[in-house]
Amino acid sequence: MRFAVLGTGVVGRTIAVKLASLGHEVVIGTRDPKTTLARAEPDGYGNPPFSAWQHENPQVRLATFAEAAAGADTVVNATAGGVALEILAAAGAENLAGKVLADIANPLDFSGGMPPSLDPVNTDSLGEQIQRAFPEAKVVKTLNTMNASIMVDPSQVPGEHTVFVSGNDAEAKQAVTELLASFGWPRPSIIDLGDITTARGTEMLLPIWLRLYSTLGHAQFNFHIAGAYPAA
Amino acid sequence: MRFAVLGTGVVGRTIAVKLASLGHEVVIGTRDPKTTLARAEPDGYGNPPFSAWQHENPQVRLATFAEAAAGADTVVNATAGGVALEILAAAGAENLAGKVLADIANPLDFSGGMPPSLDPVNTDSLGEQIQRAFPEAKVVKTLNTMNASIMVDPSQVPGEHTVFVSGNDAEAKQAVTELLASFGWPRPSIIDLGDITTARGTEMLLPIWLRLYSTLGHAQFNFHIAGAYPAA
Repeated sequence: MRFAVLGTGVVGRTIAVKLASLGHEVVIGTRDPKTTLARAEPDGYGNPPFSAWQHENPQVRLATFAEAAAGADTVVNATAGGVALEILAAAGAENLAGKVLADIANPLDFSGGMPPSLDPVNTDSLGEQIQRAFPEAKVVKTLNTMNASIMVDPSQVPGEHTVFVSGNDAEAKQAVTELLASFGWPRPSIIDLGDITTARGTEMLLPIWLRLYSTLGHAQFNFHIAGAYPAA
Repeated sequence: MRFAVLGTGVVGRTIAVKLASLGHEVVIGTRDPKTTLARAEPDGYGNPPFSAWQHENPQVRLATFAEAAAGADTVVNATAGGVALEILAAAGAENLAGKVLADIANPLDFSGGMPPSLDPVNTDSLGEQIQRAFPEAKVVKTLNTMNASIMVDPSQVPGEHTVFVSGNDAEAKQAVTELLASFGWPRPSIIDLGDITTARGTEMLLPIWLRLYSTLGHAQFNFHIAGAYPAA
């Protein structure tokens, strides 16, 4: 399949490499490829500049948001949540229409300092905002509740643990479920929560995730719903 | 020890029975004991009236919020979150001062219909509101992230799963941790998240808990933090 991954940060890079390793055609979308490739400094988290990463991963192409989305069957929103709607608009509603749009972003709001809060929250979610803004896209919220490296290699965390899917389109959720299975997620670990409004629940896991990260001193953990399937 | 459990609903009753079975002196607090005992109908969830429950559990006494709190070493807030501050005020700041106040309530807001949202949320929590309103109480948020029956019998859910504690007073958190251990919680399953502001994170688990309850069709599940302690 042909994937567009919107976002050049660690999450986007991690997803892109995994997809390419599975034999998919992957294009990362960015605002201006020349600017992205011209950056020579590590980002604010100490990650190498995109050009260095691109050198190691030549199988993943870089293009504008719109070019990446136009050429894809499936689009992955791996942007910072605060700019997601703007970036998806740049990708173009016409390039998202009819496609699965896997939204793995979180609407973290750093305006009040650390730890970030969420915006939207409680009675709305980023997943719902995206679905409302792009009604012809088939938005599936998933993977937003864990560190990037675990998203594509769940075996990094010992024992059973859970990934959630939320969305209005059953076929799109099924396609994402197959994708998650190809990433190594055991099917009983993939919980379909319901429609896209259930993205409120998964986005609202971020505050305790951030506190656990701080308290435990590492990010190699994940949520598990113990007892979810009593018959299993 | 002498416990006051504020709230006559299922959560309060469940905690009270468990505490009594462990040999503690337990008084349930209510607004007006005569009114509570005069109710002859099941509550809105189909639970038997308090008088029927009291008949089965004569070792637990019923008293006003203030009488219950005045006679206790430790107070448990098992009220509906929306009335918690009012009920704690009725219990009396002087009867809470210097005591451990285990807050196991959630600020569910049903004003917008089902499923409920949270109020406060995101940049505040019920746990923090209670600590601010009763600065001399030692508020510990705990047990608010699971069904009542699991709170006092974690073996009901198979495998490892987690209970969180949040609070500003280390000794109070230690006392609550001992209490949780006496309920059957293995010590590695008890995660101290940090100060009372971390109650935001545990209260914000409620939206996904409610969606899981709906999707799974039962409440006999709990959150587990897989991989929390890599060395264990």
